[in-house]
Amino acid sequence: MTRILAIGSYTDTDSAALAGMGAQALPSLDALASLPQDLRSGVEGLAYKGHAALGGDSMDLLPGLRVIANFGVGYDAIDVEAATARGIVVTNTPDVLNDDVADLAVGMLIAQNRGFEPAMAAVRSGDWSAKGDLPLARKMSGRRVGVLGLGRIGQEIAARLVPFKCEIHYWSRSPKSTPGWTFHDDPVALARAVDDMIVAVVGGPETEGLVSAQVIEALGTDGVLVNIARGSVIDEAALIEALEQGRIRGAALDVFRGEPHVDPRLARLPNLLPLPHIGSATVETRAAMGALQRRNLQAVLAGDAAVTPVNAV
Amino acid sequence: MTRILAIGSYTDTDSAALAGMGAQALPSLDALASLPQDLRSGVEGLAYKGHAALGGDSMDLLPGLRVIANFGVGYDAIDVEAATARGIVVTNTPDVLNDDVADLAVGMLIAQNRGFEPAMAAVRSGDWSAKGDLPLARKMSGRRVGVLGLGRIGQEIAARLVPFKCEIHYWSRSPKSTPGWTFHDDPVALARAVDDMIVAVVGGPETEGLVSAQVIEALGTDGVLVNIARGSVIDEAALIEALEQGRIRGAALDVFRGEPHVDPRLARLPNLLPLPHIGSATVETRAAMGALQRRNLQAVLAGDAAVTPVNAV
Repeated sequence: MTRILAIGSYTDTDSAALAGMGAQALPSLDALASLPQDLRSGVEGLAYKGHAALGGDSMDLLPGLRVIANFGVGYDAIDVEAATARGIVVTNTPDVLNDDVADLAVGMLIAQNRGFEPAMAAVRSGDWSAKGDLPLARKMSGRRVGVLGLGRIGQEIAARLVPFKCEIHYWSRSPKSTPGWTFHDDPVALARAVDDMIVAVVGGPETEGLVSAQVIEALGTDGVLVNIARGSVIDEAALIEALEQGRIRGAALDVFRGEPHVDPRLARLPNLLPLPHIGSATVETRAAMGALQRRNLQAVLAGDAAVTPVNAV
Repeated sequence: MTRILAIGSYTDTDSAALAGMGAQALPSLDALASLPQDLRSGVEGLAYKGHAALGGDSMDLLPGLRVIANFGVGYDAIDVEAATARGIVVTNTPDVLNDDVADLAVGMLIAQNRGFEPAMAAVRSGDWSAKGDLPLARKMSGRRVGVLGLGRIGQEIAARLVPFKCEIHYWSRSPKSTPGWTFHDDPVALARAVDDMIVAVVGGPETEGLVSAQVIEALGTDGVLVNIARGSVIDEAALIEALEQGRIRGAALDVFRGEPHVDPRLARLPNLLPLPHIGSATVETRAAMGALQRRNLQAVLAGDAAVTPVNAV
């Protein structure tokens, strides 16, 4: 009898480990409804990896469900309220990916300010030899950087920027005890105080459009906007317009609205550094995320407390 | 009468400032011999920007020369011994570019470990949407990094890697008082002790081929080699072979032998991140370098000590 369903695309190692727990693989959430009812009724644990919305309707197809173990720290795709109402524990994989996401954010800020993309292309194409040096880029050390959301990932990002002699500013729901870093109570005020901004808030309705046209305008013509959080946090239409018109100097985005489909206007902008949501996409971190996902499943199914729950059931 | 010649390609700002000092512009060193002898005889200061060899022959064309002010920290193109023998002060522009070069080195290490180049291309081309995620990359935080040459730039690089939780190892002519960083007395021993290596030594005959086939071999199949120093430091033929055969995982090079001409075998390697010698190529730093070059010229021509001399005359 199938007690666990594993939805999404897993590495061979993770697939084998899940199969070892007796999990049945399902390529996507859409396939859930087509499973036989007696199979669905026996399912108590769901390993979930994906960004498709997982709501109460899907949960109701699994009446015996006790735990949804999400692969990833962001669980905005899951209707946690609906899960709580049904007595289903939701877990995520926090912390194990903080380093990767922070590394990426800092790398994106350097690569955008220093113009890595056109520079690499100039060597590959032979243009460096044929046409000479590129226009000068911009210095990264010493820039004033605003971190939007000073949670665990935001703090890892800010800590990495200290030896770059960056002045650190942040917006968060409340001031943190981080001596030397300056708190702002409003994203627009943060944008006005800094050169560049890195978005590190959680996704979901609370932060939808938090980086508004006003925030982008306040960042200004010398500013660079980096997003390693969720596409939903940025008013993407306003950002496209600002990038096209040079009202912001550049952006570096690892996440997009409607990803993996990227607005073609964004994809061709030369002042954008685009990445395909690789925040945690390393061998090391994905292995740690898979292990934590399985530990959460095992704990709840064994009647123990979840390791990293996101709701109280 | 022309007291100063400015050789090389300068920004508009630098050109204007040099012209304001009465300097005559000369596109390249080759043009020196074709200048009238009476003009050459009056020249006392040379602003030099370039990588073409500046030897005793060129100096002898300027019998009244008192100072060669190099634009850049690396002065391996200038025959300093020949200058000293002729009583000519040679100056460079140290320190003002340390931040830029260190920023670049860290950005290159992140970008190479995290696969920025194929990742950006996947978004640009639409492949992310059409073909799905790329293979997983590698985690950067926590890697053991060896810095070859712990001078001022090497120390800036190492300091930036500390909050990435990297274990720092280094090779230098002598151990430095850097608690927590591990000294190795041999480049091969350094390569064996670390995951990745960043080359930050000076150029010139002393470091020619210092990163030998043995060093590359010792770095091993999981290693990444970053070079922000000089192309001459690496045995490039050995590196190409190791990259082609996967005996080293990857490299990120800002400098090449014979640059701006890059060996076509290097330019097409997918496990190489190539940059067109942009170590100090930012608006801010190039302005600071130009200002320091002019201060050195002015000081020596006024009979004062040079600000940043590299020889004792």
